[in-house]
Amino acid sequence: MTGGGGPPGAHAFRIGLLGHGTVGAAFAALLAQRAAHVEAITGLAPEIAGVLTRSRGDFDELLAASDLIVELIGGIDPARDYVVRAMAAGKHVVTANKQLLSQHGEELWGLAREHGVQLRFEAAVAGVVPVIRVLQESLAAAHVERIHGIVNGTTNFILSEMARTGASYADVLVQAQALGYAEADPSEDVNGKDAAAKMAILARLAFDTPVHLDQVVCEGIERIGPDDLEYARELGLGLKLIGTAERVDGGLSVRVHPAFLYPGHPLASVNGPYNAVTVESEAITEITMSGPGAGGPQTASAVLGDVISAMIPPASTPEANDRLEIVADVVSAFYIHMEVVDAPGVLSRVTGVLGEHGISVKSVVQKGLGDNARLVMVVHPVLESRFFAALAALATIDALRTAPRAIRVIEEEFA
Amino acid sequence: MTGGGGPPGAHAFRIGLLGHGTVGAAFAALLAQRAAHVEAITGLAPEIAGVLTRSRGDFDELLAASDLIVELIGGIDPARDYVVRAMAAGKHVVTANKQLLSQHGEELWGLAREHGVQLRFEAAVAGVVPVIRVLQESLAAAHVERIHGIVNGTTNFILSEMARTGASYADVLVQAQALGYAEADPSEDVNGKDAAAKMAILARLAFDTPVHLDQVVCEGIERIGPDDLEYARELGLGLKLIGTAERVDGGLSVRVHPAFLYPGHPLASVNGPYNAVTVESEAITEITMSGPGAGGPQTASAVLGDVISAMIPPASTPEANDRLEIVADVVSAFYIHMEVVDAPGVLSRVTGVLGEHGISVKSVVQKGLGDNARLVMVVHPVLESRFFAALAALATIDALRTAPRAIRVIEEEFA
Repeated sequence: MTGGGGPPGAHAFRIGLLGHGTVGAAFAALLAQRAAHVEAITGLAPEIAGVLTRSRGDFDELLAASDLIVELIGGIDPARDYVVRAMAAGKHVVTANKQLLSQHGEELWGLAREHGVQLRFEAAVAGVVPVIRVLQESLAAAHVERIHGIVNGTTNFILSEMARTGASYADVLVQAQALGYAEADPSEDVNGKDAAAKMAILARLAFDTPVHLDQVVCEGIERIGPDDLEYARELGLGLKLIGTAERVDGGLSVRVHPAFLYPGHPLASVNGPYNAVTVESEAITEITMSGPGAGGPQTASAVLGDVISAMIPPASTPEANDRLEIVADVVSAFYIHMEVVDAPGVLSRVTGVLGEHGISVKSVVQKGLGDNARLVMVVHPVLESRFFAALAALATIDALRTAPRAIRVIEEEFA
Repeated sequence: MTGGGGPPGAHAFRIGLLGHGTVGAAFAALLAQRAAHVEAITGLAPEIAGVLTRSRGDFDELLAASDLIVELIGGIDPARDYVVRAMAAGKHVVTANKQLLSQHGEELWGLAREHGVQLRFEAAVAGVVPVIRVLQESLAAAHVERIHGIVNGTTNFILSEMARTGASYADVLVQAQALGYAEADPSEDVNGKDAAAKMAILARLAFDTPVHLDQVVCEGIERIGPDDLEYARELGLGLKLIGTAERVDGGLSVRVHPAFLYPGHPLASVNGPYNAVTVESEAITEITMSGPGAGGPQTASAVLGDVISAMIPPASTPEANDRLEIVADVVSAFYIHMEVVDAPGVLSRVTGVLGEHGISVKSVVQKGLGDNARLVMVVHPVLESRFFAALAALATIDALRTAPRAIRVIEEEFA
């Protein structure tokens, strides 16, 4: 059952892996890839002690050979039994299991406290978006007033695509399935139950009150039509599946439903298969965190972050193990603003100088007449030292009335 | 020097506070307000052991009376000496001092490791946005490719206002000073040095390489003109002061400069005195975190999060100390979509039913003719049970061709 072959080294940290689906396989691959780095920062060499799946492996044997259990089997049975037995044996547990925690969280957190072990679950909500750690640690003492979250990437992709293309719910669902953003049976996503489980967990942490999945008011996106999105556009609104947990008259409301957002809302611009969570509190105003909500490597990355935290005392800043050279000259795209004389041949002079320096122009705007004539360009990425040499050459052209101004352009576009 | 009067209790946790400016005073106030909650989750009663300012107090006396030192004095001297002596005495330190860490970080982190104490500094970068903790813990093993950050709220406010109003840099700076978003001497903000110090710290953590403030390439926003922002709009770009740290040909580039962003970039929609940081890595795709970058209560909240983490082992989920009632019926605004017969009096019938239920209409759109006639409304917030009673009553009107559809509207607008 133990990996590798020989006995574990003195500094080995043995991880028992339950489940070997998309996330489990991605976790094993990521751990192998980052093992040397993990050892550099923790002083312990992580290794997979063994893998248990529904069809293969013996849990007791794996537990005995492990320092920590990673539970990625999902569902209630047998995951709950495994997690209980691992903690009873004094082993830390890292899990991505939202169903388990939203239905049996109080029991499991109580067992973790009783046995003095860590039960970490960043990957259970919003994938790699670190909302669990931030609520548990950064905001441990905050008096949270409200959480709004887009915590299901499938439905956010579907609603984004319906808004972008005007297509129907049914058509976009088929597309989402083809792209791998929706499962063959998408019911738990589109009926809001997946988001409800995540909101139950967030509400428990933020409001210090036990919240069971069954207490979350829940409505899905199945009834949303293209005309809802069309009218929303006319009214200046965006449509998302929103999870809410908020204080209401001394009580707590936890719910999931489609909702329109005004354009200024931090969640209004979150499109595609992304997750985002906004936490509001008087002292902090609000914090928003966003990122990919699912995906094997992303979820595995959240699991690995939890595993490392279980391996070492946090908040020590390890010695700088790398010595990257600090580079000053990089490649950038630029915008150039030039006040020019209003005469023929100016554009040709300018582009000539740029061409001599190997700089190619992406777009040009000419504005104004006479003493207000201006030339604005965006040029393609070029080594900055070369660009500034060209800019110095441009400054000597008598067709320019003042020195040219340059501002960098960041070219990446995101979903 | 000790607070309160009598000797500290068995469960007291004594905090020595260095500095009593905006953030120091806000921290003392927040701690007093949240002390009972902190005790509930940590089992220790936090108290201010004493306050040292430049003009009053004795450091050795305060150190002896403290379990942890919070350094909010700022600058290098005497902050550096105090932090060194506190750690040498085996005390944890929490600091918001970006200058200190960007110039003497390696020395201080080394001393923390040597003495086995925690040196926490969430508040040094991006205020309450938990980027330090996320880099150090959630992403401890991530192979980060790039960080982009808006890490100075003053300059982001100035550029946002210039873009929004077309006003000049000088005019907006005066306005920012009046609103408290810029200091009387704003040079460190507008010349990019403040952002450079923060990027040096982020780069150190993300790339595991020592980075000194002096190695950060830096350009400020003083030369940006309203016409740059105007042309940017024409080219479909937004303008921000962007900090970048990224791998370049096996080396590391760390820089701060104004830059244009395309609308899809996660930082393009961050406006006003806000901070935001995007971390990119192959495994995680990218995570973006945003929130207020400064302000006394916000920064104090980040400091308190660090203090609590130093008090307790992290990632235990404390027993649920609260028992808020779970409320199902809340107040919401709604959009209503109705397919109606194309006949006089329909709008009057519908608004009549809504009025009988005490629901007032915010906006109405009528669309289509004949068999395509539709009525779309947004109504003001109302208790949901009352709204759904009205919706049931609307469904019985023969002027409606199908059952009405309702979707909630989240009304908050953000900066």
